[in-house]
Amino acid sequence: MAIRPIRILGIDPGLRRTGWGVVVAEGSRLSFVACGCVESNGKLSLAERLRELHIGLTEVLERHAPHEVAVEETFVNKDAQATLKLGHARAIALLVPALADLSVAEYASNLVKKTVVGVGHAEKAQVGAMVRVLLPKATPKTADAADALAVAITHAQHRQARALARRVLESAS
Amino acid sequence: MAIRPIRILGIDPGLRRTGWGVVVAEGSRLSFVACGCVESNGKLSLAERLRELHIGLTEVLERHAPHEVAVEETFVNKDAQATLKLGHARAIALLVPALADLSVAEYASNLVKKTVVGVGHAEKAQVGAMVRVLLPKATPKTADAADALAVAITHAQHRQARALARRVLESAS
Repeated sequence: MAIRPIRILGIDPGLRRTGWGVVVAEGSRLSFVACGCVESNGKLSLAERLRELHIGLTEVLERHAPHEVAVEETFVNKDAQATLKLGHARAIALLVPALADLSVAEYASNLVKKTVVGVGHAEKAQVGAMVRVLLPKATPKTADAADALAVAITHAQHRQARALARRVLESAS
Repeated sequence: MAIRPIRILGIDPGLRRTGWGVVVAEGSRLSFVACGCVESNGKLSLAERLRELHIGLTEVLERHAPHEVAVEETFVNKDAQATLKLGHARAIALLVPALADLSVAEYASNLVKKTVVGVGHAEKAQVGAMVRVLLPKATPKTADAADALAVAITHAQHRQARALARRVLESAS
């Protein structure tokens, strides 16, 4: 059975800067396509900033036409205002692919770290270093873009594990 | 100087149910146009639910073509998960009018209650009753639709106060 290459868009949402990264997965082989950041102007109103993120992410989707999208889950912390801001940005990250009828997977930050680095409490710098090892052609300019690639890698590995489990179950039945 | 009628859309965001209400303000006169709710299906994924809210609110905007939009500010409470959910819904409420190049005003829940009922700690039932007094033709079927009308009324009163202040300043200079 030929393996169909799957183009995955990973998104690390943030109101000021939302990172994005595109990889292609062919079976267990991963290759880098592109990455970057969509920024919003802090001097604008919240509604206008969300509009900027929406327009930027829509452009990324149109340019890279991913088959699947993965978004990092929001870390709920004690700072309610910060949680709320992140929630606004994350809503846009979930909405844009949903409007394009794409399925959106969500991964907790700890799972992303564990998948990419091997431990759930890895530092940001470790995530960036491992992304460069796994995708040698990637040159993320920001930590947000590196995190977005880590989310895409996480999705590639977990979707493969799920597909494998499905095949095993089917052959057993 | 003839007073131009202004069509105002008020939105009370919620993930399960987002209330909306449209009023027309002509100077200090207010009249009811329409109100209702956009609901999302709790069985769907978060991304799909946000898509439902986006599609529903976009339809409301297209049907009623408001000049200005007002959204109730999210109440940040101790339940971080609830705050986050509300943040997601509110992001859609802010985004949809911003995509249509409309200005979006935000009002805190307490200010809405104070404007409509006279006190900042009014009960939901009091808000609903005052909305029916101020807009006799309104028949909101849900508390969310009544709250959305209260947000629209709040915007009508505050934009008039701002316009008056501007005229006083201009005539004094």
